[in-house]
Amino acid sequence: MSEQKRTEIAALGEFGLIDRLAKKNITVNPSTLKSIGDDAAVIDNGDKMTVVSTDLLVEGIHFDLMYTPLKHLGYKSIVVNLSDIYAMNAQPKQVTVSLALSNRFSVEAVEEIYEGIYAACKAYNVDLVGGDTTSSPRGLVISVTAIGQGERDQLVYRNGAKVGDLVCISGDLGAAYLGLQILEREKRLYLDNPSVQPDLEQQTYLVGKILKPEARKDIIEMLSKNGIKPTAMMDISDGLASELHHICRQSGVGAYIEESGVSIHPDAQMMAINFKLDPITCALSGGEDYELLFTIDPSDIEKLKYLPDIYIAGEIVPKEDGITLHTKGGNIHPISAQGWQHF
Amino acid sequence: MSEQKRTEIAALGEFGLIDRLAKKNITVNPSTLKSIGDDAAVIDNGDKMTVVSTDLLVEGIHFDLMYTPLKHLGYKSIVVNLSDIYAMNAQPKQVTVSLALSNRFSVEAVEEIYEGIYAACKAYNVDLVGGDTTSSPRGLVISVTAIGQGERDQLVYRNGAKVGDLVCISGDLGAAYLGLQILEREKRLYLDNPSVQPDLEQQTYLVGKILKPEARKDIIEMLSKNGIKPTAMMDISDGLASELHHICRQSGVGAYIEESGVSIHPDAQMMAINFKLDPITCALSGGEDYELLFTIDPSDIEKLKYLPDIYIAGEIVPKEDGITLHTKGGNIHPISAQGWQHF
Repeated sequence: MSEQKRTEIAALGEFGLIDRLAKKNITVNPSTLKSIGDDAAVIDNGDKMTVVSTDLLVEGIHFDLMYTPLKHLGYKSIVVNLSDIYAMNAQPKQVTVSLALSNRFSVEAVEEIYEGIYAACKAYNVDLVGGDTTSSPRGLVISVTAIGQGERDQLVYRNGAKVGDLVCISGDLGAAYLGLQILEREKRLYLDNPSVQPDLEQQTYLVGKILKPEARKDIIEMLSKNGIKPTAMMDISDGLASELHHICRQSGVGAYIEESGVSIHPDAQMMAINFKLDPITCALSGGEDYELLFTIDPSDIEKLKYLPDIYIAGEIVPKEDGITLHTKGGNIHPISAQGWQHF
Repeated sequence: MSEQKRTEIAALGEFGLIDRLAKKNITVNPSTLKSIGDDAAVIDNGDKMTVVSTDLLVEGIHFDLMYTPLKHLGYKSIVVNLSDIYAMNAQPKQVTVSLALSNRFSVEAVEEIYEGIYAACKAYNVDLVGGDTTSSPRGLVISVTAIGQGERDQLVYRNGAKVGDLVCISGDLGAAYLGLQILEREKRLYLDNPSVQPDLEQQTYLVGKILKPEARKDIIEMLSKNGIKPTAMMDISDGLASELHHICRQSGVGAYIEESGVSIHPDAQMMAINFKLDPITCALSGGEDYELLFTIDPSDIEKLKYLPDIYIAGEIVPKEDGITLHTKGGNIHPISAQGWQHF
């Protein structure tokens, strides 16, 4: 390892690091339609496009086995990748799963993870086609690659948003983040006093959103049935603020979001206040909701307006106008790209 | 985690575990041509087949950064996956790379890994199209997925070997294993006395085989040019013995290998003796050579006979005859499936 110069990864952040590495990337194969920088890569197979997305889940970073059932973990590891494929307006078809496991895990534990994996495959009509199983000196690592199929002219990228497009969000935001706060609180209580039993009964919605998220296959199907092709789309894994910045940067535009246009579940509203957090901040910066953020041409508004569980939250504006939040009180705040910072 | 019953993974081994998990696997998509159980999965895209392979490399299990330069590690992580694609008689086109890194790694360290990744991509005409970069509480994990393209009637699986077919091996075996023994010895010497400088100058062939392996793209191209389509093929990552068992099991046959038909490099011969090891045992059970093991129809022998760097090492026999080694001394030994046991 070169020791001449040492730049901490934290100084660049995940996206800064990826940008720096991607600068040296040159693609040569004509079948490589889309490389680094979207939810998934796109490969031209003549007839159909192959869409590929991959994610690495690391124990102690992405999940805590103290409160994550192994079956849920397996389920979620698949779903988060399928979500990326849907965000390309494509259909996931296959997944590969690789596991690195320390000897703390038994065969039965691995089978529980796979029960969740198979349950997700069944729910989304996806086939598990390969992978790798190996040992690890410590902890559990899950690497999933999802492979989907899409029509050449139906794929949706991050860079297609135009000034005047409407910004839409599926479902409600912030719930997964608040679910995580509940689990972390219960963990602290338990560590302080192991005889305390966690009480999660009242919070099935929030806890369910973090432990067993679903990918919005239904939204993609509904848009397609109603003849709507978004101009840009991505899934909300790092938080609305972060994803909005990605779409704006890649499309060369700005955007505003109306606070009143962001749906927040009543349980999330309540719990945010409980934790002394601002609900809209949880919705903007909390991650892992796996909802879809997309933009549509304003001419599609009549088709979209009455569709369930889709909220028109704002509009694409010229780049100079920046990325802002219009609060219920009538104020305008710039939105920073506060995603999840792993480093 | 269920604690009712605990079976250690070591009790099943890697392949036993995969078998057990794969039993519950049901595929539903018509595009899924080949699932778990070969070097790569095969997806039907109408015109072209997409071939997908994935590998997880874990620090402390698959590599030791005390003697593995980061650039070599990046290079190797790509090559071992490309090797799986070639073993399907397909052409790799794209890769995705995911990294999990602890804060011990600087941006410069990550750039070194990527230098190796890009060098491998360039050498094999492959495009890096995506991935994921995240932190890890400890150590480095690299997950690579390789995507290739093949013609429907040109793909070669593990299950096509027939009685009477000839068993062929590209290149020489055992060198990577002996290279690893040298590096491990130098590491021990260094740990005992850090002022000792390692002397690897004399062993560039063996050390090169473990630190910077190459995938046998040249062999695949040569076979194709000469009109030879193997009946079964896989790459030798876990050792000849283990791979031969895979082909025999999946093809429902047995096989014998002639000791004199297995090429062992003179440096490997010497070093084996140096370490008091049997050279043929190193060739059979040492892994990571990334050579190709394949079978051909006997009618192809005239076409193959004079091709460089391919050795006819044995023959496929009925299953009842087992899997055996015919030694130079005229003895017949059963070959056990001694692959690498990570667990």
